[in-house]
Amino acid sequence: MASQRVGLHHPRVRQVLSLARNGAADDHLLVAEGVWAHEMLARAGTLVETFLWCPDICRSDRVRDCAERMSAMAETAYEISPKVLARLTARARPDGLISVARLPRWDAADVPVDESSLVLVVDGIEYAGNLGTLIRTADACHADCLLVTSRQVRLTHPRVFVASRGTVLTTPIVEFPGSAQAAEWLESRGFEIFLADPQATLTYRACGFRRGPTAVVVGSEGQGLPPQWYDRKVTAVSIPMLGTADSLNVSVSAAILLYEARAAKAGW
Amino acid sequence: MASQRVGLHHPRVRQVLSLARNGAADDHLLVAEGVWAHEMLARAGTLVETFLWCPDICRSDRVRDCAERMSAMAETAYEISPKVLARLTARARPDGLISVARLPRWDAADVPVDESSLVLVVDGIEYAGNLGTLIRTADACHADCLLVTSRQVRLTHPRVFVASRGTVLTTPIVEFPGSAQAAEWLESRGFEIFLADPQATLTYRACGFRRGPTAVVVGSEGQGLPPQWYDRKVTAVSIPMLGTADSLNVSVSAAILLYEARAAKAGW
Repeated sequence: MASQRVGLHHPRVRQVLSLARNGAADDHLLVAEGVWAHEMLARAGTLVETFLWCPDICRSDRVRDCAERMSAMAETAYEISPKVLARLTARARPDGLISVARLPRWDAADVPVDESSLVLVVDGIEYAGNLGTLIRTADACHADCLLVTSRQVRLTHPRVFVASRGTVLTTPIVEFPGSAQAAEWLESRGFEIFLADPQATLTYRACGFRRGPTAVVVGSEGQGLPPQWYDRKVTAVSIPMLGTADSLNVSVSAAILLYEARAAKAGW
Repeated sequence: MASQRVGLHHPRVRQVLSLARNGAADDHLLVAEGVWAHEMLARAGTLVETFLWCPDICRSDRVRDCAERMSAMAETAYEISPKVLARLTARARPDGLISVARLPRWDAADVPVDESSLVLVVDGIEYAGNLGTLIRTADACHADCLLVTSRQVRLTHPRVFVASRGTVLTTPIVEFPGSAQAAEWLESRGFEIFLADPQATLTYRACGFRRGPTAVVVGSEGQGLPPQWYDRKVTAVSIPMLGTADSLNVSVSAAILLYEARAAKAGW
């Protein structure tokens, strides 16, 4: 199953370079590198548009097996030389596997909503690491989807992939341009909306998470939630701050609230 | 209160350069930069050994007020030129405030233990951002102290400072060379020890956190907990993983367990 060997000027190779440097105009295209990332792509059944492999530096059966699987599942697969690889990777010791993959698109209309539904809304998130961790947590507590509004970082950022442990490939993520559109979607489906707000007097243990569709909304690292959320029928809840810090990391806040809501729904 | 202006060859300036590049041989020395970090130092009453200020680029009263306060509280204070500042900072738009501060040392013998005690043990943490977030969470849930064993990253790393929101300056942090010493300290003080373990069959909602000194132990990002912990009288607890990921981010796991323990102790 030898693939054609291509050089630096091949359009697919140039695309990887361009994506790695600048991100994508079509922001559902993701550059994945290394054996772990490719195993995640395979497990998730993600659409791989281009797979590039450098067999000359292959160091293990695990890498070779992964490369064979990828060559079979990718839309196009090529071999590259160590010299071309060196231009595509920032790693000191690359595995020799690089792909362009396409994140699935999720449509808000397709998200099923029922009594057990739990969704996380992240509004204005600035840091890729936090966004990835939020996705990983949404996966872990079996949130039905993540609603992303006013994001400041692309979903295809390599740190989102790593921090999400690859769950960015499988978690339903629906984007809204702003808070109002997300709120309208939630209201039209009967969600009870809880805002994470360190100033709220009602705490997360007393707020009465229950059956029925539940949304937890967290704001940006620097600014918190935009004031428009408070014009809606919402419940602001706090996590008690018992020390000197005035807030928790946004991924930590979201996790505490989501797991509390999940526990209440599941009767843990 | 004008301070002496010093150049690049002054020993205090050279020390900042060396610390910023290499960390410290004495690993309680921290380089802090910018107005936010200095406000944290002032609020915490941290010992500032050297304060360097570049008045030529001062852009606001907030910076000037902070500089005056620092000049008064630092052991030594000097002015530097914009040219020297440029050598000390990696920022595109620096505030002109740089200090060498000393993290307090905490002695395990001085940590008070009572029925409400809650401590977090972090064993083998590799990433500065996670370590900082763990400290911020320990502060927020009023953990009595953080026990650090086998750490792979220094407490004085700039990302620890930022991710902790400055709470690294005030949170009691006690270091142990390895798991055994930390476990012995906990046992000698009657702590009930809970290990965060994604494989455990007992979940964190069912494990019965209660009054009495309680320790939550989390392992490294890559390896989890070293097996030695299981030779002790411990309770392994899991957070249910309901999706595809096999674990949560370590800061997220610690936060869920710590807040559950705090809630049980406080009767929330």
